Amino acid sequence: MATENTSAPTIGRHRPEIDVPSLTAVLDGEYAGIRELVRTNLVAHAGILDEADALGIDAFRERVREVVVQLAATGQTGMGFPAAFGGGDDIGASIAAFETLAFGDLSVLVKVGVQFGLFGGAILHLGTRHHHKAYLPRLVTGELMGCFAMTESGHGSNVQALGTVARYDPESQEFVLTTPDEQARKDYIGNAARHAVLAVVFAQLEVDGRSEGVHAFVVPLRSDGRVLPGVAIEDDGRKMGLNGVDNGRIRFDGVRVPREALLDRFARVTPEGTYESAIEDPGRRFFTMLGTLVQGRVSVAGAGVSVAKVALTVATKYADRRRQFEASPDTGEQVLLDYGLHQRRLLPLLARTYALHFAQDVVRSQLHEVFSGAENDPQARRRLESRAAGIKALATWHATRVVQECREACGGAGYLAENRFAALKRDSDVFTTFEGDNHVLLQLAAKGLLTDHASEFEDLDQLGMVRYVTGLAVETVIERTSAHKLLERVRDLLPGGDAWDREAGLLDSEYQLAMVRFREEHMLAGLARRIKRGIDRQDAPGAVFSHVQDHVIALARAHVERLITEAFVDKVRALPEGAVKDALGLLCDLFALSAIEADRAWFMEHGRLTVQRSKAISREVNELCRKVRPLAVDLVDAWGIPAAVLRAPDLVGPVG
Amino acid sequence: MATENTSAPTIGRHRPEIDVPSLTAVLDGEYAGIRELVRTNLVAHAGILDEADALGIDAFRERVREVVVQLAATGQTGMGFPAAFGGGDDIGASIAAFETLAFGDLSVLVKVGVQFGLFGGAILHLGTRHHHKAYLPRLVTGELMGCFAMTESGHGSNVQALGTVARYDPESQEFVLTTPDEQARKDYIGNAARHAVLAVVFAQLEVDGRSEGVHAFVVPLRSDGRVLPGVAIEDDGRKMGLNGVDNGRIRFDGVRVPREALLDRFARVTPEGTYESAIEDPGRRFFTMLGTLVQGRVSVAGAGVSVAKVALTVATKYADRRRQFEASPDTGEQVLLDYGLHQRRLLPLLARTYALHFAQDVVRSQLHEVFSGAENDPQARRRLESRAAGIKALATWHATRVVQECREACGGAGYLAENRFAALKRDSDVFTTFEGDNHVLLQLAAKGLLTDHASEFEDLDQLGMVRYVTGLAVETVIERTSAHKLLERVRDLLPGGDAWDREAGLLDSEYQLAMVRFREEHMLAGLARRIKRGIDRQDAPGAVFSHVQDHVIALARAHVERLITEAFVDKVRALPEGAVKDALGLLCDLFALSAIEADRAWFMEHGRLTVQRSKAISREVNELCRKVRPLAVDLVDAWGIPAAVLRAPDLVGPVG
Repeated sequence: MATENTSAPTIGRHRPEIDVPSLTAVLDGEYAGIRELVRTNLVAHAGILDEADALGIDAFRERVREVVVQLAATGQTGMGFPAAFGGGDDIGASIAAFETLAFGDLSVLVKVGVQFGLFGGAILHLGTRHHHKAYLPRLVTGELMGCFAMTESGHGSNVQALGTVARYDPESQEFVLTTPDEQARKDYIGNAARHAVLAVVFAQLEVDGRSEGVHAFVVPLRSDGRVLPGVAIEDDGRKMGLNGVDNGRIRFDGVRVPREALLDRFARVTPEGTYESAIEDPGRRFFTMLGTLVQGRVSVAGAGVSVAKVALTVATKYADRRRQFEASPDTGEQVLLDYGLHQRRLLPLLARTYALHFAQDVVRSQLHEVFSGAENDPQARRRLESRAAGIKALATWHATRVVQECREACGGAGYLAENRFAALKRDSDVFTTFEGDNHVLLQLAAKGLLTDHASEFEDLDQLGMVRYVTGLAVETVIERTSAHKLLERVRDLLPGGDAWDREAGLLDSEYQLAMVRFREEHMLAGLARRIKRGIDRQDAPGAVFSHVQDHVIALARAHVERLITEAFVDKVRALPEGAVKDALGLLCDLFALSAIEADRAWFMEHGRLTVQRSKAISREVNELCRKVRPLAVDLVDAWGIPAAVLRAPDLVGPVG
Repeated sequence: MATENTSAPTIGRHRPEIDVPSLTAVLDGEYAGIRELVRTNLVAHAGILDEADALGIDAFRERVREVVVQLAATGQTGMGFPAAFGGGDDIGASIAAFETLAFGDLSVLVKVGVQFGLFGGAILHLGTRHHHKAYLPRLVTGELMGCFAMTESGHGSNVQALGTVARYDPESQEFVLTTPDEQARKDYIGNAARHAVLAVVFAQLEVDGRSEGVHAFVVPLRSDGRVLPGVAIEDDGRKMGLNGVDNGRIRFDGVRVPREALLDRFARVTPEGTYESAIEDPGRRFFTMLGTLVQGRVSVAGAGVSVAKVALTVATKYADRRRQFEASPDTGEQVLLDYGLHQRRLLPLLARTYALHFAQDVVRSQLHEVFSGAENDPQARRRLESRAAGIKALATWHATRVVQECREACGGAGYLAENRFAALKRDSDVFTTFEGDNHVLLQLAAKGLLTDHASEFEDLDQLGMVRYVTGLAVETVIERTSAHKLLERVRDLLPGGDAWDREAGLLDSEYQLAMVRFREEHMLAGLARRIKRGIDRQDAPGAVFSHVQDHVIALARAHVERLITEAFVDKVRALPEGAVKDALGLLCDLFALSAIEADRAWFMEHGRLTVQRSKAISREVNELCRKVRPLAVDLVDAWGIPAAVLRAPDLVGPVG
C-alpha cells in the first residue's frame, strides 16, 4: 500500500523501512552500555512488578530494599560516585541508568533515587573528604541506607523557612537538633520509616545565638535496627503509590551530633563556635547548597519521559491489534489506530515524548558538564538549574497526561492491574509535586529569564523575585528582550520578509522555531512591563505578584517549549540522511505543529497567526498523524522497553 | 475587608453572607429527603474508607457486600423499583441517592450500581411480570445478587457484534448458551467473580437456524455458592481501583435455561420456536433494549460530579488554610487560595462543577419523566439517551481532571492514602470508559444531532451513521441548521445588532448563550457538509468517517457545553433575588467565560471573537476568580459532604 501524501487517509498498515535497532542506537546515544545493563537487570527483576500487588506493604518494602541492593552490586546505581569509593565517575551515565530503570517498578526507582541520589548526593556534594571516606563506600553498595530529611509538614516548597533547629554547643562541641513544633517535623521522608540508619537533616543552624540559615547535618537515626534516643519516627503509612518506599516523619528532641556532622563543603563551625563560609552572602550560600538538588530534578524529568514511553508502548501496540466497529462494508472490524481520532489521541503524544527525550539529552549533558567540573561558571550552573526545573515540570505533567490518555485508549482492559497502567498511574502521580512542585519550579525557570541568570539569589520566593525585579532588572529585561532582533534574524532565514509568518512553509523548522522564540520574547517583555507597572503604582509586592502569576507560568512554559523544540530540531538536523532522519523529521514536525496548534489562540491574539493559517495547521497535524501512523509500532519499539516489564500480553500481543 | 471590584486583588479572606443551608437546599432540591438519608448512611459506614486500604481484597469484597445489603435495608438503594416489590417507585430519587452515595467509597457505589442499576434494571426494564415476581423482592433487599453480563473480551463498545450465542431448542423448550471463542467470553463483569447467583446474559439469539440479534437471558451461575456445571468463571483479579467489586470473566459451555429465561418485554419465542416481537425492525429492537442502559449513564454522570465535589472540597479547604511563602514583607506567609494562580487552578473547576450539577438535574428529571411514563414519545427517549451520553462523557472527564488538579494542589500531603485522593483517583478512573467509552458516547450524541433524533437506529456504529447520513439527512441538516435563524434571534436579545459579538457585555448571559449556540450550529452545518463532500467524492464510508471523526467529537462537545450552559443560566434565572442567586450568578459567569476562553481559538477562527475581546475575556475570568475566592469555602460546604467521608483532617482542618 502506498504512503504518499494523498488526501485519502491511510487505512491499513504499512511499515516503511525504519531499522529499529539503528533508531534505538540514536536514542540510547553515548550511554548505550549502561542502558543495556539496566535493561538486563530489569528483566532479571521483572517479578517485582507482580510482587507490588501480591505482597503486603511490609513485605514489599523489604523486597524493594533487596532489589535495590542487588542492583547496586551490578554497578548501575553507583555511576555518579567517585571510582575511589566504588562508583563509576560518570554522572551522565548515572542519570541514563536512572531513566532506563524507570521502565520498571517505580518503588525500586524512587528507593534508588532516595538512597543514591538524594542521600548519597548530599553526602557527596555537601560533605567533604572525611564524610566521603566515612560513608560513601558502604552507601554505594546499599549496605548503609540513609534518607534526605529536608521537607517538613509545614514547609515543602519554601525550604528557607524550615523550622528544625541545630544549635551549636561549644562546650561539648556538638550540634543539638530540635523539632520545635508539629509543623517542623520532617515529613514524607523516603527510607525514614524503616531502613535509614542515617539522615541528612536540613536545619536552621544557630551559632552563638545567631541564625546562620539552613545547613545539612548527618544524624544517626537507628542502631541495630532500633530508633535512637531523642529521635521519634512515625510511618507516613500507605500512599497513593510507591508503597515499596517507606516514607516517614521524624522529630528530634535535643539530639546531639558531633561538630563533624555538619556537611561542611560550603560552611563550617570552628570548635570554639565561630561560623565560617567562603560564600559570604547567606542567600547565595543557601542556594548553592540547594543546587545539589538539580540532579534529582534531572532524574525525575527523565523518569517522567520513561513513564510516558511505557504507557505509549502499551497503548500503541494495543491500538495496532484491537479491532472495533466495521469501517466499511465487508472489510471486518477496523484496527483502532486506523481511526483518525485514535491517531489524534496518541500520535502527538508520541511525538512529544520523542521531543522530551531529546530535551532530556541536553539537560543531562549540561548536568554532566557542570558536575564533572568541565563547566564551572556560576551562570552555567544557574542556567542548568533553570532548565532542569522547567523540563522536570513539563516532562512530569506530560507523563501524567500520557498515562491517563493511554489507559482510556485501552478501555476496560487498561483498568486491570495485570497491565502497567494501574501501577504507572499511582506511582508516577507524585512526580508532579516532588523534587519541587511543578508550579514553583516554573516560577524558578521564569525568574532566570527575568534576571538573565545574573542574580546572586536563585530564590524560589516570589517576594524576593518581585523585590529583585523592582530594584534592577525590568528596564534591562525590556531592553534586552530581543523580539526586535529576533524578527530581523527571522527575515534572513525565512521567505516572505516581514510576512514570514504568513509565507513560510509550515514544515520549515525555521518557521516553527521562529514562532516559539517570538512567543517567549513577547511574553518576557510583557511580564517585565506588567511588573514595572505594578511597581510604579506602588502596589504591594504580593499584590503585584498575585496579578502577574499566570503570566509568569505562561512565560516559563513558553520558554521550556522553546528549549524542547530546539533540542528536537537540532537532533534531527545533526542526523545523517536516511530513514531514521526522515522518520524523526516527520515526528518533529508533528510535535512542533501540534504544540503551536495547542496554543494557537495566543498566536492569533498576538498577530502571528491568521485564521486561515491556524486552520491549515490543524489540517497539517491530521495529515502528519496519518503519515506517522504506519511508523508508530517501530517508533515505540525503538525505546527498547523489555517485554517482561510491559506485561499485559493480552494488550500488547505475543512477544516477538 | 471590602470585596468591591477594585483593581487590586483581594488578599486575605472575607465571607459575604451566603447562608450555606439555603444553598444546600437549592442544590439538594426535591430530593433533599433521600439525600439526607444517604448522608446519614455514609457517616454510619464511613469506616469502609479505611477498610478499603486495610483489608485484603477478599475480605474487602465481603465487607462491601455487607455494606450494600445494609444500605438496601434502609431503602436508599431500591428507590427505582416498584413499591409492590419493596421499592420506592421513584426513579429520580434513585439517581439522587446514587449521586449522594458517590461521596463515599466507590466500590460500595459501583456494587450498588451493578446490583440495583444494571442487574436490577435489566430485570425490571427488559423482563415482564413473571420475572419481576420471581426476582425483584429478593433482588431489592440484596439477598439475591446478580450481574449484568454484556461486555466481552472482544467487544465492549460494539455490542451488536457480541459473540455469545443462545440457540433455541424447541425439543426441550430451552435456550442453549455457548461461548464460541475466547473473544466472546464475558469480561469485566461486576459481581461475577464471587457474589452473583444469577446473570443477565446478552447473547445472539438463534431460533430455527436464524439469527435474531442480541437478546437478554436470565442465567443461573451459582447454587449454594458453587458455580454450576457448564459455567466457567475466572476472576479478573486486582484492578487499578474498585477492588471491593468482584469483576470476572464468564464462559458458557452448552448451558441450558428454560424458555422463560428470555427477558421478554420486547420479544418472545413461542414454545414451538417462533420468534415474535412487536418491534419489527431488528435494529430498532436492539436499541430499544439498549435504551435501558441510559439509567446507568445518568448514574455515572452524577457520580462523576460528586467525585469532583469531594476533591474540590478537600483542595479548597486546604488552600484556605495552608500558607507558603511571604507575599509582602512582614505579613507572614500567604494562604494558597490568595494566590492568583491557585484561584485560576481551582475556581473555574469549582464553577464547572456547579454547572454540571445543574446539568445533571436536567438529565435526571428527563430520565424520571421518560421512565415514569409521564413522557412516552420515542423522540423524547432518544433525546434523553443522547443527553445522558454527552453529560456522562463530560462529567467523568471533568472528574478525572479535577481529582488530578486537586491532588497536585495539595502537594505531598495529597499523595498520602489517609486523605481521599488516592482512592478517588484509582476508583473513579474507570468512569471515563465504563457504561460506554466517552468517545463512543460523544459520537452517539453527535449522531442524534445529525439525524435530529429522527432515525430509527440509535446506532453506535459509525458505518451505520455514515450510511444513514448518506441516504437522507445531510441536506436536511444543512437546511435545518439554524445558524441564520439563531443570529436573527440574537439580534433581538443583545445590543449591537449584527455586531452583538463585539458590543454585548461579557457578563450578559444572553451573550454567553449566543456564543455557545452559534458554535454548535456552525459545527453541525460544517460536519454535515464535510460528510456530504466525502460521499459526493464516492470515498469509502470508513475513509469519510475517519476524516471527520475529530469534527464529530468537537460537535458533540460543543452540543453538551451548550446544554450545560443553558442548565446553569436557567437555574440562576429561576432563583429568587438574594445572596444565593448573586453567588450562583458569579459562578455561572465564571463557568461560561472560562469555557469560552478555553475554546477561544475556535471563536477567533470563526469570526466570533476579536483579539481584543478574547484578551478581555481572560481578564474578566481573573477578575471573577478574585470575586469568587471569598465565597469558595461556603460554596464547597454547601455540597454537604459529611466530614467523616472527607477524612484528611490535616488537610481540611478541624470539623466545625
